[in-house]
Amino acid sequence: MKGFDQQVREFTRAEMERKGVNLHFNTNIERIEPSQGAYTVHLTNGDVLEVDVVLAATGRKANIRDLGLEALGLGLDDAGKIPVNERFETALPSVLALGDLTAGPELTPVALAEAMQLVDVHFADTAPKPLDYTTIPTAVFCHPNIGTVGLSEEAAREKFANIRVYSTDFRAMKHTLSGSQERTLMKLIVDDATDVVVGAHMVGDDAGEIIQGIAIAVRAGLTKQDFDRTVGIHPTGAEEFVTLRTLTRT
Amino acid sequence: MKGFDQQVREFTRAEMERKGVNLHFNTNIERIEPSQGAYTVHLTNGDVLEVDVVLAATGRKANIRDLGLEALGLGLDDAGKIPVNERFETALPSVLALGDLTAGPELTPVALAEAMQLVDVHFADTAPKPLDYTTIPTAVFCHPNIGTVGLSEEAAREKFANIRVYSTDFRAMKHTLSGSQERTLMKLIVDDATDVVVGAHMVGDDAGEIIQGIAIAVRAGLTKQDFDRTVGIHPTGAEEFVTLRTLTRT
Ligand SMILES: Cc1cc2nc3c(=O)[nH]c(=O)nc-3n(C[C@H](O)[C@H](O)[C@H](O)COP(=O)(O)OP(=O)(O)OC[C@H]3O[C@@H](n4cnc5c(N)ncnc54)[C@H](O)[C@@H]3O)c2cc1C
Ligand SMILES: Cc1cc2nc3c(=O)[nH]c(=O)nc-3n(C[C@H](O)[C@H](O)[C@H](O)COP(=O)(O)OP(=O)(O)OC[C@H]3O[C@@H](n4cnc5c(N)ncnc54)[C@H](O)[C@@H]3O)c2cc1C
Repeated sequence: MKGFDQQVREFTRAEMERKGVNLHFNTNIERIEPSQGAYTVHLTNGDVLEVDVVLAATGRKANIRDLGLEALGLGLDDAGKIPVNERFETALPSVLALGDLTAGPELTPVALAEAMQLVDVHFADTAPKPLDYTTIPTAVFCHPNIGTVGLSEEAAREKFANIRVYSTDFRAMKHTLSGSQERTLMKLIVDDATDVVVGAHMVGDDAGEIIQGIAIAVRAGLTKQDFDRTVGIHPTGAEEFVTLRTLTRT
Repeated sequence: MKGFDQQVREFTRAEMERKGVNLHFNTNIERIEPSQGAYTVHLTNGDVLEVDVVLAATGRKANIRDLGLEALGLGLDDAGKIPVNERFETALPSVLALGDLTAGPELTPVALAEAMQLVDVHFADTAPKPLDYTTIPTAVFCHPNIGTVGLSEEAAREKFANIRVYSTDFRAMKHTLSGSQERTLMKLIVDDATDVVVGAHMVGDDAGEIIQGIAIAVRAGLTKQDFDRTVGIHPTGAEEFVTLRTLTRT
């Protein structure tokens, strides 16, 4: 979860632990041994776990090393990606590249947006506005879900002289009925000088569904006042995003 | 569902019928008779139903007739509501009224917004902008849920010379896995002259949660281009609201 808002990361950890997930930080798998239909996993910190299944999700790397790009004089950057300009042209301008092959988040809608942008850049009558890579929303489909758009609190603190942070942490109404102790976190980061909402974060049920609409507002540069002037839909979880009135910290 | 977008109404009817709900239109309950632990219901159209339970949800009326308002010279309007000006002042300016007592949608967040507006109108240093009653989002928690903000297609056609309607109707990914045939409807109404999104409608899971963020965009008067320039979150249902590219009708 590197790069995600720190409070979002800690909240997610606490909620996952509450569900009974044991998290092991700063360690890795050293060796896996079969043992009576299950597995013994040796970690680099010396811990030994007995488990039924091992699923190793170690990240991904675009499989482009053997495409023959070097023969075209197209080198890869340090991250193993193909460098392109804002017209998606490689060092050989007749060769275009986008999506996972190039820098930027490796996400389906990013590849789609870049494809549409490419068509606009090369064939539209009017000059298209550049894609805004700073307000690409994304979700992590862990339990509870994470949804996020724009800057983390830490990144906003770096970028702006003064920020305002509004956050709330509550038990969703349905969980007060079900008895589950699961909590939801919602958080807005505002640039104090302009009142623009520069980051929106959520951990909880349907975070991806809820952040999608919020992302339209954040991408367009709407202000905290625009959020506050929107009437809530009661009872929903999402209404908290338009009723955050108490400053959590600056 | 009077006043709701016609396509939303028809779609909801079809989905409820698919779930096995029998809907009876243009009729009412005339008489209910107990019969062997259950009930016999006689409808005004002559139909007779044998049912286990009767829940009659006939709408509501503010219970203010006996408050003694007449003694203060405060008459009610034809709808039985207390007339107020935009400062929430009744005919007797020292008596203020808001919420269900006055005209406007009978919703908790509307009463809350009016209370905050009242405080601003009477005590804020700067003149507050009026509450926008045309972009109050709302949800109906039937199955599937309805979420809506702004104008219906019919109202938009009345108000604007030319409109564009974008809609999509699909089986949510989780239902393709579950085998359920339940479908989701999403719909944007755009004023063609300004490109402003004047209405957003959804029938499907979490419609209220999804429409809340969309409502920030609609209240702020964002354009279809603002929606289109927002990157989707995949896989969600809500991403359809930012990827509607094919005009359904004008
Ligand atoms: C397990 C997994 C889960 C993911 N989950 C999500 C998610 O939930 N949400 C999300 O937004 N993104 C997700 N992603 C990322 C997403 O799939 C990618 O970002 C997206 O597919 C990138 O699109 P692309 O067009 O750049 O590349 P791709 O979709 O990978 O398309 C590249 C195509 O080129 C073809 N190809 C490769 N070599 C050759 C060749 N030599 N000749 C001809 N054709 C070739 C490939 O077969 C492939 O069809 C996930 C990725 C993985 C691996
Ligand atoms: C069954 C039902 C379901 C609803 N579901 C929703 C929903 O899902 N979402 C939504 O947004 N809205 C919903 N509503 C509507 C919502 O409850 C109202 O719009 C909202 O409560 C209005 O707020 P208010 O302050 O105007 O009135 P109220 O909340 O009714 O407050 C009026 C108060 O005045 C008190 N009072 C009355 N007479 C006197 C008196 N003579 N002296 C002193 N006190 C008095 C009452 O006891 C009450 O506490 C629902 C309403 C009902 C009835």
